[in-house]
Amino acid sequence: MSRILGIDPGLHITGWGIVDFDEFHLRYVAHGTITTLPSENIGSRLSNIFKMLSNIIEEYSPTEIGIEDVFVNKNPFSSLKLGMARGAAICCAGVLGLSICEYTPNKIKKSVVGTGHATKEQISIMVQKLLNCGNVKLDAADALAVAICHAHHKTFFVEKR
Amino acid sequence: MSRILGIDPGLHITGWGIVDFDEFHLRYVAHGTITTLPSENIGSRLSNIFKMLSNIIEEYSPTEIGIEDVFVNKNPFSSLKLGMARGAAICCAGVLGLSICEYTPNKIKKSVVGTGHATKEQISIMVQKLLNCGNVKLDAADALAVAICHAHHKTFFVEKR
Repeated sequence: MSRILGIDPGLHITGWGIVDFDEFHLRYVAHGTITTLPSENIGSRLSNIFKMLSNIIEEYSPTEIGIEDVFVNKNPFSSLKLGMARGAAICCAGVLGLSICEYTPNKIKKSVVGTGHATKEQISIMVQKLLNCGNVKLDAADALAVAICHAHHKTFFVEKR
Repeated sequence: MSRILGIDPGLHITGWGIVDFDEFHLRYVAHGTITTLPSENIGSRLSNIFKMLSNIIEEYSPTEIGIEDVFVNKNPFSSLKLGMARGAAICCAGVLGLSICEYTPNKIKKSVVGTGHATKEQISIMVQKLLNCGNVKLDAADALAVAICHAHHKTFFVEKR
Protein backbone atom coordinates (compact mmCIF):
# COMPACT_ATOMS: atom_id res chain seq x y z
CA MET A 1 0.00 0.00 0.00
CA SER A 2 1.18 3.50 -0.69
CA ARG A 3 0.06 6.74 0.88
CA ILE A 4 -0.05 9.60 -1.61
CA LEU A 5 0.05 13.31 -0.80
CA GLY A 6 -1.35 15.49 -3.60
CA ILE A 7 -0.42 19.19 -3.63
CA ASP A 8 -2.00 22.05 -5.58
CA PRO A 9 0.44 24.89 -4.86
CA GLY A 10 -0.45 28.58 -4.78
CA LEU A 11 0.97 31.60 -2.97
CA HIS A 12 -2.44 32.55 -1.55
CA ILE A 13 -3.96 29.05 -1.15
CA THR A 14 -2.10 25.73 -1.31
CA GLY A 15 -4.45 22.74 -1.36
CA TRP A 16 -3.36 19.34 -0.02
CA GLY A 17 -5.04 15.95 0.06
CA ILE A 18 -3.99 12.45 1.12
CA VAL A 19 -5.24 9.07 -0.14
CA ASP A 20 -4.18 5.49 0.52
CA PHE A 21 -3.87 3.25 -2.52
CA ASP A 22 -3.33 -0.53 -2.76
CA GLU A 23 -3.17 -1.04 -6.56
CA PHE A 24 -6.96 -1.30 -6.98
CA HIS A 25 -8.57 0.64 -4.13
CA LEU A 26 -8.43 4.29 -3.16
CA ARG A 27 -9.18 5.36 0.41
CA TYR A 28 -9.60 8.95 1.56
CA VAL A 29 -7.31 9.95 4.46
CA ALA A 30 -7.33 13.75 4.89
CA HIS A 31 -7.38 17.08 3.12
CA GLY A 32 -7.00 20.79 3.81
CA THR A 33 -5.69 24.14 2.63
CA ILE A 34 -2.78 26.36 3.67
CA THR A 35 -3.62 30.05 3.33
CA THR A 36 -1.13 32.94 3.40
CA LEU A 37 -2.09 36.59 3.22
CA PRO A 38 -0.79 39.24 0.80
CA SER A 39 -0.27 41.49 3.87
CA GLU A 40 2.44 39.11 5.21
CA ASN A 41 6.00 39.45 3.88
CA ILE A 42 7.09 36.97 1.22
CA GLY A 43 9.57 35.22 3.56
CA SER A 44 6.91 34.41 6.10
CA ARG A 45 4.39 33.36 3.40
CA LEU A 46 6.80 30.89 1.79
CA SER A 47 8.17 29.56 5.06
CA ASN A 48 4.59 29.05 6.29
CA ILE A 49 3.83 26.91 3.22
CA PHE A 50 7.07 24.98 3.89
CA LYS A 51 6.41 24.51 7.63
CA MET A 52 2.73 23.57 7.27
CA LEU A 53 3.56 21.00 4.58
CA SER A 54 6.37 19.64 6.80
CA ASN A 55 3.84 19.21 9.63
CA ILE A 56 1.38 17.43 7.31
CA ILE A 57 4.14 15.10 6.04
CA GLU A 58 5.24 14.36 9.64
CA GLU A 59 1.65 13.72 10.78
CA TYR A 60 0.52 11.49 7.88
CA SER A 61 3.82 9.99 6.64
CA PRO A 62 3.00 9.87 2.91
CA THR A 63 5.31 7.63 0.86
CA GLU A 64 4.89 9.52 -2.42
CA ILE A 65 3.98 13.00 -3.57
CA GLY A 66 2.12 14.23 -6.64
CA ILE A 67 2.10 17.92 -7.49
CA GLU A 68 0.19 19.93 -10.05
CA ASP A 69 2.46 21.17 -12.81
CA VAL A 70 1.13 24.69 -12.43
CA PHE A 71 -0.67 26.37 -15.24
CA VAL A 72 1.78 28.88 -16.71
CA ASN A 73 0.00 32.19 -16.70
CA LYS A 74 0.51 34.56 -19.63
CA ASN A 75 1.47 37.18 -17.07
CA PRO A 76 5.13 36.56 -16.08
CA PHE A 77 4.55 38.17 -12.64
CA SER A 78 1.80 35.63 -11.87
CA SER A 79 4.11 32.84 -13.11
CA LEU A 80 6.82 34.11 -10.78
CA LYS A 81 4.44 34.04 -7.77
CA LEU A 82 3.19 30.56 -8.66
CA GLY A 83 6.79 29.47 -9.13
CA MET A 84 7.75 30.68 -5.66
CA ALA A 85 4.88 28.80 -3.95
CA ARG A 86 5.71 25.72 -6.01
CA GLY A 87 9.40 26.11 -5.10
CA ALA A 88 8.56 26.16 -1.37
CA ALA A 89 6.35 23.03 -1.68
CA ILE A 90 8.78 21.00 -3.82
CA CYS A 91 11.68 22.11 -1.65
CA CYS A 92 9.86 20.83 1.46
CA ALA A 93 9.28 17.40 -0.11
CA GLY A 94 12.89 17.27 -1.34
CA VAL A 95 14.36 18.24 2.05
CA LEU A 96 12.30 15.47 3.70
CA GLY A 97 13.60 12.96 1.13
CA LEU A 98 10.31 12.27 -0.69
CA SER A 99 10.15 11.79 -4.44
CA ILE A 100 7.81 14.04 -6.40
CA CYS A 101 5.85 13.35 -9.60
CA GLU A 102 4.46 16.24 -11.60
CA TYR A 103 1.16 16.13 -13.52
CA THR A 104 -0.29 18.67 -15.93
CA PRO A 105 -3.78 20.03 -15.18
CA ASN A 106 -5.09 18.21 -18.27
CA LYS A 107 -3.73 14.84 -17.12
CA ILE A 108 -5.26 15.36 -13.66
CA LYS A 109 -8.67 16.28 -15.09
CA LYS A 110 -8.62 13.27 -17.44
CA SER A 111 -7.79 10.97 -14.52
CA VAL A 112 -10.68 12.17 -12.40
CA VAL A 113 -13.42 13.43 -14.74
CA GLY A 114 -12.45 11.65 -17.98
CA THR A 115 -11.91 14.83 -19.97
CA GLY A 116 -9.10 17.38 -19.99
CA HIS A 117 -11.48 20.34 -19.95
CA ALA A 118 -13.44 19.84 -16.71
CA THR A 119 -14.33 22.75 -14.44
CA LYS A 120 -13.12 22.99 -10.83
CA GLU A 121 -16.69 22.22 -9.67
CA GLN A 122 -16.82 19.04 -11.80
CA ILE A 123 -13.48 17.93 -10.33
CA SER A 124 -14.75 18.54 -6.80
CA ILE A 125 -17.95 16.49 -7.42
CA MET A 126 -16.01 13.57 -8.96
CA VAL A 127 -13.39 13.59 -6.18
CA GLN A 128 -16.16 13.42 -3.56
CA LYS A 129 -17.84 10.52 -5.44
CA LEU A 130 -14.60 8.58 -5.97
CA LEU A 131 -13.40 8.98 -2.38
CA ASN A 132 -16.77 9.17 -0.62
CA CYS A 133 -15.33 11.91 1.56
CA GLY A 134 -18.12 14.49 1.95
CA ASN A 135 -17.80 18.14 1.07
CA VAL A 136 -14.34 19.32 -0.04
CA LYS A 137 -13.26 22.89 -0.84
CA LEU A 138 -12.21 23.45 -4.47
CA ASP A 139 -8.47 23.88 -3.80
CA ALA A 140 -8.30 20.77 -1.60
CA ALA A 141 -10.37 18.86 -4.19
CA ASP A 142 -7.75 19.76 -6.81
CA ALA A 143 -5.05 18.39 -4.50
CA LEU A 144 -7.00 15.13 -3.92
CA ALA A 145 -7.40 14.93 -7.72
CA VAL A 146 -3.59 15.10 -8.08
CA ALA A 147 -3.27 12.23 -5.58
CA ILE A 148 -5.87 10.17 -7.52
CA CYS A 149 -4.05 10.95 -10.78
CA HIS A 150 -0.77 9.71 -9.26
CA ALA A 151 -2.50 6.50 -8.11
CA HIS A 152 -3.89 5.89 -11.63
CA HIS A 153 -0.49 6.56 -13.12
CA LYS A 154 1.06 3.96 -10.78
CA THR A 155 -1.62 1.40 -11.79
CA PHE A 156 -0.88 2.06 -15.43
CA PHE A 157 2.77 1.19 -14.87
CA VAL A 158 1.84 -1.93 -12.86
CA GLU A 159 -0.45 -3.05 -15.73
CA LYS A 160 2.24 -2.40 -18.33
CA ARG A 161 4.77 -4.71 -16.59
CA MET B 1 27.87 45.81 13.03
CA SER B 2 25.66 43.76 10.78
CA ARG B 3 26.57 40.81 8.60
CA ILE B 4 24.69 40.81 5.30
CA LEU B 5 24.10 37.81 3.04
CA GLY B 6 23.31 38.78 -0.55
CA ILE B 7 21.62 36.20 -2.78
CA ASP B 8 21.23 36.16 -6.56
CA PRO B 9 18.86 33.21 -7.04
CA GLY B 10 18.72 30.99 -10.14
CA LEU B 11 17.70 27.37 -10.75
CA HIS B 12 21.01 26.59 -12.48
CA ILE B 13 23.34 28.93 -10.54
CA THR B 14 22.56 30.72 -7.27
CA GLY B 15 25.21 33.25 -6.31
CA TRP B 16 25.83 34.22 -2.67
CA GLY B 17 28.10 36.74 -1.01
CA ILE B 18 28.62 37.98 2.55
CA VAL B 19 29.86 41.37 3.77
CA ASP B 20 30.20 42.93 7.21
CA PHE B 21 28.98 46.50 7.56
CA ASP B 22 29.37 48.99 10.44
CA GLU B 23 27.45 52.01 9.09
CA PHE B 24 30.44 53.41 7.19
CA HIS B 25 32.73 50.50 6.31
CA LEU B 26 32.19 47.42 4.20
CA ARG B 27 34.33 44.33 4.73
CA TYR B 28 34.36 41.29 2.45
CA VAL B 29 33.69 37.98 4.26
CA ALA B 30 32.97 35.23 1.71
CA HIS B 31 31.29 34.39 -1.57
CA GLY B 32 30.41 31.40 -3.74
CA THR B 33 27.89 29.78 -6.07
CA ILE B 34 25.45 26.87 -5.72
CA THR B 35 25.07 24.95 -8.97
CA THR B 36 22.32 22.42 -9.76
CA LEU B 37 22.14 20.45 -12.99
CA PRO B 38 19.17 20.17 -15.40
CA SER B 39 19.74 16.37 -15.32
CA GLU B 40 18.73 16.26 -11.60
CA ASN B 41 15.04 16.14 -10.69
CA ILE B 42 13.44 19.39 -9.58
CA GLY B 43 12.97 18.20 -5.97
CA SER B 44 16.66 17.55 -5.52
CA ARG B 45 17.65 20.79 -7.32
CA LEU B 46 15.45 22.96 -5.07
CA SER B 47 16.29 21.11 -1.85
CA ASN B 48 20.01 21.43 -2.71
CA ILE B 49 19.61 25.22 -2.99
CA PHE B 50 17.74 25.18 0.35
CA LYS B 51 20.29 22.94 2.12
CA MET B 52 23.38 24.70 0.79
CA LEU B 53 21.99 28.12 1.79
CA SER B 54 21.12 26.68 5.24
CA ASN B 55 24.74 25.52 5.61
CA ILE B 56 26.04 28.96 4.56
CA ILE B 57 23.71 30.69 7.04
CA GLU B 58 24.80 28.30 9.83
CA GLU B 59 28.49 28.78 9.02
CA TYR B 60 28.54 32.59 8.69
CA SER B 61 25.54 33.63 10.86
CA PRO B 62 24.37 36.62 8.79
CA THR B 63 22.00 38.96 10.59
CA GLU B 64 20.22 40.22 7.45
CA ILE B 65 19.54 39.04 3.93
CA GLY B 66 19.22 40.95 0.67
CA ILE B 67 17.90 39.18 -2.42
CA GLU B 68 17.69 40.21 -6.04
CA ASP B 69 14.11 40.83 -7.11
CA VAL B 70 14.54 38.61 -10.15
CA PHE B 71 14.19 40.01 -13.60
CA VAL B 72 10.81 38.85 -14.87
CA ASN B 73 11.48 37.16 -18.17
CA LYS B 74 8.99 37.62 -21.02
CA ASN B 75 8.83 33.83 -21.22
CA PRO B 76 6.45 32.62 -18.46
CA PHE B 77 8.28 29.24 -18.28
CA SER B 78 11.54 31.01 -17.47
CA SER B 79 9.71 33.13 -14.87
CA LEU B 80 8.31 29.96 -13.32
CA LYS B 81 11.83 28.42 -13.04
CA LEU B 82 13.27 31.62 -11.58
CA GLY B 83 10.31 31.77 -9.20
CA MET B 84 10.98 28.25 -7.94
CA ALA B 85 14.67 28.94 -7.23
CA ARG B 86 13.70 32.20 -5.56
CA GLY B 87 11.02 30.37 -3.55
CA ALA B 88 13.58 27.86 -2.24
CA ALA B 89 16.03 30.63 -1.25
CA ILE B 90 13.44 32.90 0.44
CA CYS B 91 11.86 29.90 2.13
CA CYS B 92 15.24 28.92 3.61
CA ALA B 93 15.78 32.41 5.06
CA GLY B 94 12.20 32.48 6.38
CA VAL B 95 12.45 29.05 8.02
CA LEU B 96 15.68 30.16 9.76
CA GLY B 97 13.92 33.31 11.02
CA LEU B 98 15.91 35.86 9.02
CA SER B 99 14.28 38.93 7.51
CA ILE B 100 14.68 39.49 3.78
CA CYS B 101 14.87 42.72 1.79
CA GLU B 102 14.29 42.65 -1.96
CA TYR B 103 16.08 44.92 -4.44
CA THR B 104 15.44 45.40 -8.14
CA PRO B 105 18.37 44.84 -10.53
CA ASN B 106 18.35 48.57 -11.34
CA LYS B 107 18.64 49.58 -7.67
CA ILE B 108 21.51 47.11 -7.18
CA LYS B 109 23.38 48.38 -10.24
CA LYS B 110 22.92 52.01 -9.16
CA SER B 111 24.26 51.19 -5.69
CA VAL B 112 27.43 49.58 -7.02
CA VAL B 113 28.21 51.14 -10.41
CA GLY B 114 26.21 54.37 -10.16
CA THR B 115 23.98 53.63 -13.14
CA GLY B 116 21.00 51.33 -13.59
CA HIS B 117 22.26 49.96 -16.89
CA ALA B 118 25.64 48.44 -15.99
CA THR B 119 26.79 45.13 -17.47
CA LYS B 120 27.55 42.07 -15.32
CA GLU B 121 31.27 42.61 -16.02
CA GLN B 122 31.12 46.23 -14.80
CA ILE B 123 29.36 45.08 -11.61
CA SER B 124 32.04 42.43 -11.03
CA ILE B 125 34.88 44.98 -11.45
CA MET B 126 33.23 47.50 -9.09
CA VAL B 127 32.45 44.84 -6.46
CA GLN B 128 36.11 43.74 -6.50
CA LYS B 129 37.26 47.37 -6.15
CA LEU B 130 34.80 48.21 -3.35
CA LEU B 131 35.51 45.05 -1.34
CA ASN B 132 39.14 44.49 -2.36
CA CYS B 133 38.36 40.78 -2.58
CA GLY B 134 40.24 39.54 -5.68
CA ASN B 135 38.63 37.74 -8.58
CA VAL B 136 34.91 36.94 -8.20
CA LYS B 137 32.72 34.96 -10.61
CA LEU B 138 29.88 36.96 -12.21
CA ASP B 139 27.01 35.28 -10.30
CA ALA B 140 28.74 35.65 -6.94
CA ALA B 141 29.64 39.27 -7.83
CA ASP B 142 25.93 39.93 -8.39
CA ALA B 143 25.19 38.48 -4.93
CA LEU B 144 27.90 40.63 -3.30
CA ALA B 145 26.38 43.61 -5.15
CA VAL B 146 23.00 42.82 -3.52
CA ALA B 147 24.70 42.78 -0.10
CA ILE B 148 26.40 46.15 -0.84
CA CYS B 149 23.06 47.57 -2.02
CA HIS B 150 21.42 46.44 1.24
CA ALA B 151 24.22 48.11 3.24
CA HIS B 152 23.75 51.40 1.32
CA HIS B 153 20.01 51.19 1.85
CA LYS B 154 20.55 50.78 5.61
CA THR B 155 22.90 53.81 5.64
CA PHE B 156 20.24 55.81 3.84
CA PHE B 157 17.73 55.00 6.55
CA VAL B 158 20.28 55.78 9.30
CA GLU B 159 20.95 59.18 7.64
CA LYS B 160 17.23 59.89 7.33
CA ARG B 161 16.57 59.33 11.05
